[in-house]
Amino acid sequence: MSVVAFERFQADGRELVEPALERWLPTEAQAGPLAAAMRHIVFAGGKRLRPALVLLGAQHVGGRRQDALAAAAAVELVHAYSLVHDDLPCMDDATLRRGRPCVHVVWGEGLAVLAGDALLTLAFEVLARHTPPGCPVGAMVVALGEAAGWEGMVGGQVEDLAAEGQVPELERVRRIHAGKTAAMMSVSLRLGALAGGAGAEETEALARVGRDLGLAFQIVDDLLDVQGTTAELGKQAGADAEHGKMTWPAVVGVERSRRDARELVEGALAACPPGAAGAVLQALAQSILRS
Amino acid sequence: MSVVAFERFQADGRELVEPALERWLPTEAQAGPLAAAMRHIVFAGGKRLRPALVLLGAQHVGGRRQDALAAAAAVELVHAYSLVHDDLPCMDDATLRRGRPCVHVVWGEGLAVLAGDALLTLAFEVLARHTPPGCPVGAMVVALGEAAGWEGMVGGQVEDLAAEGQVPELERVRRIHAGKTAAMMSVSLRLGALAGGAGAEETEALARVGRDLGLAFQIVDDLLDVQGTTAELGKQAGADAEHGKMTWPAVVGVERSRRDARELVEGALAACPPGAAGAVLQALAQSILRS
Repeated sequence: MSVVAFERFQADGRELVEPALERWLPTEAQAGPLAAAMRHIVFAGGKRLRPALVLLGAQHVGGRRQDALAAAAAVELVHAYSLVHDDLPCMDDATLRRGRPCVHVVWGEGLAVLAGDALLTLAFEVLARHTPPGCPVGAMVVALGEAAGWEGMVGGQVEDLAAEGQVPELERVRRIHAGKTAAMMSVSLRLGALAGGAGAEETEALARVGRDLGLAFQIVDDLLDVQGTTAELGKQAGADAEHGKMTWPAVVGVERSRRDARELVEGALAACPPGAAGAVLQALAQSILRS
Repeated sequence: MSVVAFERFQADGRELVEPALERWLPTEAQAGPLAAAMRHIVFAGGKRLRPALVLLGAQHVGGRRQDALAAAAAVELVHAYSLVHDDLPCMDDATLRRGRPCVHVVWGEGLAVLAGDALLTLAFEVLARHTPPGCPVGAMVVALGEAAGWEGMVGGQVEDLAAEGQVPELERVRRIHAGKTAAMMSVSLRLGALAGGAGAEETEALARVGRDLGLAFQIVDDLLDVQGTTAELGKQAGADAEHGKMTWPAVVGVERSRRDARELVEGALAACPPGAAGAVLQALAQSILRS
């Protein structure tokens, strides 16, 4: 697949997802500063990688992207909430996110906690309300909860906090990244597969692909923090080292980190079950290495 | 219904709900301090009023309490998360809750934010995973999201924060209480009715009963803060006034607050649709005035 065709796929996905998020988020007329804060983080120019994985998952198993749209919005809402809470002074203490001031900088810490809570709640509401009848909505809510909660993203964030300033160790970094990043990328493909009508085996296989791509994505993110500038990243460069974060390059170095990311992506693609969107998935996976 | 029979009903309910919460929360072996913090707030000797309303709702419409057990646990998990986040220094800045130190006092603010996030996520996961097939699980997830999110509990909390130190005004207090408290008590009866197989009209009628009982409950809670001692309350007495909170008695005085609470409870009971658990619901409503 050409880079142009891949960029076209991503743009098509955003054309579905952006208006859906616009429709399903409260307006400022409805919810004042709470809505403003929720929209500030959701419409901050994110790449919508997780929604793209959801739509891809549905297409890959022969389903319709439209059926997975609620799930695509839901994973982006969960991602947005996690950014707001992660940036709080009691967590990563960030001030800049995607080139703009963090929610707590603009509206205060109390409202930032509440805006995150509202985004997380809305994710489940949107998933259940807008997933079409006939899709396994119960199983989809369970999958999202498992990936976002104590076994997944929140669990990884707890490990991340606890590991600050400790001696870096590969198994621990792997656990942190598996929870913080890979769980949500895995469930993105899983939700797409479920909405698209896939069987259990195909769904599990795609979820494993998402997990390995997610791990590679986080390794690349760690590398960018070491090597990028604040202007390039839209957030403070070098923040990981400053906070004593346990990162992949801190354990194995930059060169091996690059190799590990590439091998994870290649392994994921080799293990990917055949399907209608193989070429797009391949292009998306390669784009992770380039990001 | 006698007080003894009512206390028996509550005890029966707790005998269902406590082991369910025990089973569905992670153990410390599984999730370390995150699990400890989640359990600290969930097993802090709460009265389980919201779960009792869920089970009552199911019984009232002729359904089985067992079918509503996941919903009963879910509303308690949402309630628990809201306590953890409300107590944070950037919100109500409390140190004591149910006679014990708050989660952020024991484990720090970062873990308190995350424990709240994990409890909220788990609420939806438990609801979807353990509600029996045949119940309208999609509609139940939507209802819980609506009640807990920007239109309900979180929205009320935002209004509450914004109103601190402002001139008290009855419509504003009503909006705050409707969001912060009544929405979750309303959805408790709604979820019970949905799990019990009620039709739309009966479900709406019960949800309205829950809303009015919830408003009465919050007025009584405001009164207790004025009149109780820290030892009686298990949390700091007089905290509302200290934080410039907009309370019902601050607007209309203690005497009229008592009368408003009584009238709301009587009105709710008069409007309650007939059903199998009318006597218990009546006793529960009266217990709100006594609490």
